Amino acid sequence: MNQQTTAILLAECPDQAGIIAKVTNFLTKNNGNIVDLEQHVDTADKHFFMRVEWQLENFSIDREQIQKTFSEEVGSALNMNWQIAFSDIKPRLALFVSQHGHCLFDILSRYQSGEWDVEIPLVISNHKNHQSLAENAGIAFHHIPITADNKQQQEQAQLDLLAKHQIDTIVLARYMQILSANFIDHYPHQIINIHHSFLPAFPGARPYHSAHERGVKIIGATSHYVTTELDAGPIIEQDIVRIRHNDNIEDLKRKGQDNEKIVLSRAIRHHLMHKVLVYKNRCIVFV
Amino acid sequence: MNQQTTAILLAECPDQAGIIAKVTNFLTKNNGNIVDLEQHVDTADKHFFMRVEWQLENFSIDREQIQKTFSEEVGSALNMNWQIAFSDIKPRLALFVSQHGHCLFDILSRYQSGEWDVEIPLVISNHKNHQSLAENAGIAFHHIPITADNKQQQEQAQLDLLAKHQIDTIVLARYMQILSANFIDHYPHQIINIHHSFLPAFPGARPYHSAHERGVKIIGATSHYVTTELDAGPIIEQDIVRIRHNDNIEDLKRKGQDNEKIVLSRAIRHHLMHKVLVYKNRCIVFV
Amino acid sequence: MNQQTTAILLAECPDQAGIIAKVTNFLTKNNGNIVDLEQHVDTADKHFFMRVEWQLENFSIDREQIQKTFSEEVGSALNMNWQIAFSDIKPRLALFVSQHGHCLFDILSRYQSGEWDVEIPLVISNHKNHQSLAENAGIAFHHIPITADNKQQQEQAQLDLLAKHQIDTIVLARYMQILSANFIDHYPHQIINIHHSFLPAFPGARPYHSAHERGVKIIGATSHYVTTELDAGPIIEQDIVRIRHNDNIEDLKRKGQDNEKIVLSRAIRHHLMHKVLVYKNRCIVFV
Amino acid sequence: MNQQTTAILLAECPDQAGIIAKVTNFLTKNNGNIVDLEQHVDTADKHFFMRVEWQLENFSIDREQIQKTFSEEVGSALNMNWQIAFSDIKPRLALFVSQHGHCLFDILSRYQSGEWDVEIPLVISNHKNHQSLAENAGIAFHHIPITADNKQQQEQAQLDLLAKHQIDTIVLARYMQILSANFIDHYPHQIINIHHSFLPAFPGARPYHSAHERGVKIIGATSHYVTTELDAGPIIEQDIVRIRHNDNIEDLKRKGQDNEKIVLSRAIRHHLMHKVLVYKNRCIVFV
Repeated sequence: MNQQTTAILLAECPDQAGIIAKVTNFLTKNNGNIVDLEQHVDTADKHFFMRVEWQLENFSIDREQIQKTFSEEVGSALNMNWQIAFSDIKPRLALFVSQHGHCLFDILSRYQSGEWDVEIPLVISNHKNHQSLAENAGIAFHHIPITADNKQQQEQAQLDLLAKHQIDTIVLARYMQILSANFIDHYPHQIINIHHSFLPAFPGARPYHSAHERGVKIIGATSHYVTTELDAGPIIEQDIVRIRHNDNIEDLKRKGQDNEKIVLSRAIRHHLMHKVLVYKNRCIVFV
Repeated sequence: MNQQTTAILLAECPDQAGIIAKVTNFLTKNNGNIVDLEQHVDTADKHFFMRVEWQLENFSIDREQIQKTFSEEVGSALNMNWQIAFSDIKPRLALFVSQHGHCLFDILSRYQSGEWDVEIPLVISNHKNHQSLAENAGIAFHHIPITADNKQQQEQAQLDLLAKHQIDTIVLARYMQILSANFIDHYPHQIINIHHSFLPAFPGARPYHSAHERGVKIIGATSHYVTTELDAGPIIEQDIVRIRHNDNIEDLKRKGQDNEKIVLSRAIRHHLMHKVLVYKNRCIVFV
Repeated sequence: MNQQTTAILLAECPDQAGIIAKVTNFLTKNNGNIVDLEQHVDTADKHFFMRVEWQLENFSIDREQIQKTFSEEVGSALNMNWQIAFSDIKPRLALFVSQHGHCLFDILSRYQSGEWDVEIPLVISNHKNHQSLAENAGIAFHHIPITADNKQQQEQAQLDLLAKHQIDTIVLARYMQILSANFIDHYPHQIINIHHSFLPAFPGARPYHSAHERGVKIIGATSHYVTTELDAGPIIEQDIVRIRHNDNIEDLKRKGQDNEKIVLSRAIRHHLMHKVLVYKNRCIVFV
Repeated sequence: MNQQTTAILLAECPDQAGIIAKVTNFLTKNNGNIVDLEQHVDTADKHFFMRVEWQLENFSIDREQIQKTFSEEVGSALNMNWQIAFSDIKPRLALFVSQHGHCLFDILSRYQSGEWDVEIPLVISNHKNHQSLAENAGIAFHHIPITADNKQQQEQAQLDLLAKHQIDTIVLARYMQILSANFIDHYPHQIINIHHSFLPAFPGARPYHSAHERGVKIIGATSHYVTTELDAGPIIEQDIVRIRHNDNIEDLKRKGQDNEKIVLSRAIRHHLMHKVLVYKNRCIVFV
């Protein structure tokens, strides 16, 4: 696909009459051809959400001036929070992984096939298992083991690597360490986790064991932004898989892993495509 | 919910820059508060689709004048096809049914609970089975048996009843007669059928037998607008249910019926809420 | 289908070698033609489960003697718990309902179409809404309102009605009262509830509100046997439906109700067909 | 898991009374501890199917004699077709692939994590894209381009490689060449294909284009054994993914590929675990 460069506005503000007209007028009068527009009103909260994507070719405002001009002409008066992204600037991802490789494998499969418009310069792991996998894909691999004693220093080493590689978004691809609040604060709503249960059911450790014990008929996976409360961040994507009484815990893990990797990769894509807005610990996902 | 009266515009036209701005400007400058807007561009066909809903309270154009004013100020210049509906005008449905009552039952359940904002004054059947069911729900029931010989007259009798009851939309709730082209032409994209397969697989008669014979692992149901080509009209909604090797044809029918009634009722709702646009034998469904 | 009368054995015991051979030998040497056999071994618990169904025609043991003979020749030595049912004895169901009628409607649809081989002589409700619906289906309706003060007496009135109508199984078709431990003890693993969430997520009241608040992407429904711990009994069946950010709480309720009625009806069918074994608060469901 | 070695019998024969008892007796009297048994009766065809798995430890018949002894004591008299497999003999797989790598990647992910008990010594492709991927996994890669002119010789080269590597099962992991009848005859019900549609809908080339054209709301994938009739072999596994009107053909491909790889891998696993019986172009899959 020969796609033209676009700008993407993600915005939210208190609801009032005329917001869409104001935004679309602003774009149209500046020769911005809208290629996609989605809006949502939370009627209970009286709050407005919008994603609009327009072609930059012929747009009369310079890329560097859009933020300021939009603020002056539209955003400020509406008390709007917004961000603008450009389709020709590739997000930079770092992958954190532990021993389970299924999510890492799935992500690298997409990376190598060019499915996502992204750079992945960095894999960090507290184990050495997947070093050759990462390096075969041309990605730097750093083994940073974590213990109770060295956690603070090692997280700093991770943060240094992330800064050095100019990382935008961190994907915890079944990374089995809990990140500190300090670490999380560096990447607000930019750390994507996959939890192997249907949250809020079975948070924390060993959800498949808990699912088996409870005798559920369906297991799930949840991809969410990491916040300081464990497994409680805003949910980007979830899906499920049916199980039967003859599935033991090993079967749950196996069936669950197929689900985990698909759910995580969908969530990553939504994030990379600038389709996710977070509001009150919930995600508006414009898909 | 105390909902305000809204107008709903469903529109499609060749794509060009500025359509959304033109429509939203028209509404905003006339004090129409937009409560929902969805648009879609078929980039392959370069065609634009839109659904916009706004509050009529304070709207400065009289209800009777909207069509004309919109045409003059927006629609004609864009070469647009559109329709406008009002949320306080209840659509009027007729139900056609044969011997299987599961879809009829499901629809009446929703009708009696007030789930849909609709009037259902009429049930027509070529069998007598469900007369008391309809009448208990306060709906007129007409038994119109069809044979090869009387089909033309009986369809005329049906058309007369539909006209008398001012019917907008006909639902074939497992009605096992094929409608003539003449009949269909009276209600273009206003006759909703449920077919008990995952179309285009297994069109025509006895799809569950064919599904069993082929050994599929999943069966489906498809709700579509009726056109003169059998089971080939634009698809509104589909869903599936998994089966196992130990499901015989009776099991397929039973599991399939649960699926059929849910799929049909979803399609009816989309239609009643004016969320469906038909273009090139495909449905854009704004949900 | 002209089905022959069958006997169904549901059995569980500590696992050991030769159980299946012992059971099938017992049936075969007595001319019992096996039409279905399913077994399961919980390898973690080293426990064995079995469902076997055989034709009674030509079976050399009288119906009344099967229990005793099986015990002497097979069951006792294996330390087996078991029950035997006969396909020509119709289970007798009572339906408990409150204001929401969607599950009741769905069950009555199946009852009237003959989908289930069952008798439903009794509907009990703490509201009067659905009286005519029940009575139109030829079922006795009893209005038994519950308050904090009269709960004990009213439950006794319910128990008396259940006894009078020789009820085997009670279905709580969105019955919004919590049953006392005393009541539950009268019908162990014979009271089927539908809870409008994906248990163990969102137990208790207002699960759709909680689901909306948490921002989940999927909602669920769970049918389970009622035990004295609220919403914690063994799960018979679950299913889910996807939601989007633009679904408000009313939408969740509406989409959820479609799911609830299907999940409940599936669970009822499994129970009626003697396909469910309970062990350690989990259901083995032989489907 | 430290699993004991088991034998697996897959058998089918005309239905009659006592089959299960005969088989289980044979095993039990020879000290074969049954760990899993599943049976199915096709009541329409009056045909019996069975999968039984037992521990070889303590089994009194030598591995080499089981086939002959079972035939004499059980199989022949029942007019049974059967095969016996042993859990400690790893099936040997060859992967055929063209340009799309998503299925290959998914299979190699499972291979490298040890999810399947299998040997994969060989990848054959008509393109060179995935050579390093295969070789990084320690698998021999052979580039065998196919043209209209060289097809017969190249297929012979493939057959020679398959023979040399003692391949049991061939997986067409989105291999875009049609195999000749001669080739297929060498591996009856041992060639597993993934077709990117919900068969029997959209057989042949470009199913996602056809799905888009038809306006379906759900797309599917089908894994089946290859027979000489294109896309018409017995179906092992199918699954689906929902789409919306705003998904263009590229979106269908992307969403479909996630589905394809999961469906194919499930089908491979069923086959490797000896859970699939083919009868009258249908698969009985004992899961």
